[in-house]
Amino acid sequence: MKHIQWQGDKLILLDQRFLPYQETYVECTSAGDVAKAIRDMIVRGAPAIGVSAAFGLALAAQVGEDLDKAANVLKAARPTAVNLAWAVDKVLAEAASGKAVSTIAEELFLEDIKTNEAIGRAGLEVVPPKARVLTHCNAGALATAGFGTALGVIRAAKDRIEMVYADETRPYLQGARLTGWELAEDGIPVTVIADNMAGYLMQQDKIDLVIVGADRIASNGDTANKIGTYSLAVLAHVHGIPFYVAAPFSTFDLSLEEGSLIPIEERTRKELTEFNGVKIVADKCQVYNPSFDITPHRYIDGIITEKGIFRAPYKISLQSIVETGLEQKNS
Amino acid sequence: MKHIQWQGDKLILLDQRFLPYQETYVECTSAGDVAKAIRDMIVRGAPAIGVSAAFGLALAAQVGEDLDKAANVLKAARPTAVNLAWAVDKVLAEAASGKAVSTIAEELFLEDIKTNEAIGRAGLEVVPPKARVLTHCNAGALATAGFGTALGVIRAAKDRIEMVYADETRPYLQGARLTGWELAEDGIPVTVIADNMAGYLMQQDKIDLVIVGADRIASNGDTANKIGTYSLAVLAHVHGIPFYVAAPFSTFDLSLEEGSLIPIEERTRKELTEFNGVKIVADKCQVYNPSFDITPHRYIDGIITEKGIFRAPYKISLQSIVETGLEQKNS
Repeated sequence: MKHIQWQGDKLILLDQRFLPYQETYVECTSAGDVAKAIRDMIVRGAPAIGVSAAFGLALAAQVGEDLDKAANVLKAARPTAVNLAWAVDKVLAEAASGKAVSTIAEELFLEDIKTNEAIGRAGLEVVPPKARVLTHCNAGALATAGFGTALGVIRAAKDRIEMVYADETRPYLQGARLTGWELAEDGIPVTVIADNMAGYLMQQDKIDLVIVGADRIASNGDTANKIGTYSLAVLAHVHGIPFYVAAPFSTFDLSLEEGSLIPIEERTRKELTEFNGVKIVADKCQVYNPSFDITPHRYIDGIITEKGIFRAPYKISLQSIVETGLEQKNS
Repeated sequence: MKHIQWQGDKLILLDQRFLPYQETYVECTSAGDVAKAIRDMIVRGAPAIGVSAAFGLALAAQVGEDLDKAANVLKAARPTAVNLAWAVDKVLAEAASGKAVSTIAEELFLEDIKTNEAIGRAGLEVVPPKARVLTHCNAGALATAGFGTALGVIRAAKDRIEMVYADETRPYLQGARLTGWELAEDGIPVTVIADNMAGYLMQQDKIDLVIVGADRIASNGDTANKIGTYSLAVLAHVHGIPFYVAAPFSTFDLSLEEGSLIPIEERTRKELTEFNGVKIVADKCQVYNPSFDITPHRYIDGIITEKGIFRAPYKISLQSIVETGLEQKNS
């Protein structure tokens, strides 16, 4: 997977907007370029935008740009995923001790892959034999430095996966375009469905498990993730199907008591009204396009992290991991 | 609305596949043409395909084609909506008494509009003031001879509608393309959303009522309707939001005890993998594309028909309407 390539003086990003029908790359030579790539969703996925932003700071450092200024531009690119701010703050903190920013970013990149592999191992215990797993959006290699979070669990459990059902994930089609492509390339059986088919699959007893990624997790376990995740969680609950979130600890925002405090990005009308230049919604119609929703912790059976699986009551679990010495990013 | 125009020797159908960005018409001069138009979804919506099939029989009669043969071709065009078979059988039965087939079809067309207006009036009682109504697919004028079923209720209650939220309804986008266009043209406020946003709207207390159409209703009230309806019904139930089906009595199939007996059409892979020729799903991926799902009667607060609103237990209600003298099509 060469979707985030650091070349010493520039960052080459695979343009995820046009997969799978076109494989093009975008070259970023400044923090501003990287911020724009994040905003325009050339690169997307909470951990991937964090890692990309770190390289953005490396580019800023190379041209002597003010790091704090660049950091603010990068952090403002997208509001919901906390991994973005987490990565930027981490780079700034380490850079303060004189370490080269590009080295810090490269370490962050490699660390993210290791983290995802650890998430994959931790998630093994929730995947039954011959599992038929439903996932939403793309929480895969493309959404991270590599391996993936939700898809990392699926990769780790590859031998016991009978089928992955991938919601196409409107309006941006990350499931159809990215998850479908990524898993098919890896030889993991994958069936793409429209988002509105998930409930019908559950009703037919075709889903054993739901695993999704996350963009921000409040300290009570409430989780912001791609729009549609909440509906899936409710449907899974009603059908008695286990529902898991897979995310690195950098996705937790312990400064927030609950999910209602997480800012939800609304994106442009155009994402819903047009497809490749073809108008699918009449001009006179209004459009609502929230990019994320909040799944209350009561619908989440567990949060699979690199430190193991957290289960309700999440508050105590998160507190305990902090007490065990894991760095608390929001202190 | 000139989407089904009978011109004496041909049927002109508005090609609903390309709305709202292109208004083109298809001319049918034989029953085979009409069957193809139904199969290809040039015309869609349970009552609309019933009415169109009736005109298809009129075309067959004009060229001296065997009516029973033409009837079978038309009935086989799509399997789920029972209105298709109902209309064809009704035309055959009336034609047996020597009445001109084109006259029968024209009467059926006008009768369908009146039926929808009656559904609209009957539905008024479930629409609260300042209602924010969610609907799925297109159960509107375009899906019927005119006025609509679910959208007929909305039209009848126009003065008290604050907002209609229209699920875009993947993969065919009937909500985005047709419902959005139809309501905007009528000056009814409409907001198009992706299907996966409905749960989030409910969570935010932005939906007072869900009304959808139907393609076939079993005698216990279980309802086949556009894929995604089941998920909406479950979500509405969990959020305590009233969920209504609006459909003419011709949508009931009293020969079926329950919804599991309703045949569910699966459509081609291409509807999900391509959009206007652009590939959005990699070739190696599998695809599942059921066009309908079944909503169990326990999630349906009422079925709004031209004879009034039926409520649970549906079996008894339907039996009673039959006893009150309404023709039972399946006897």
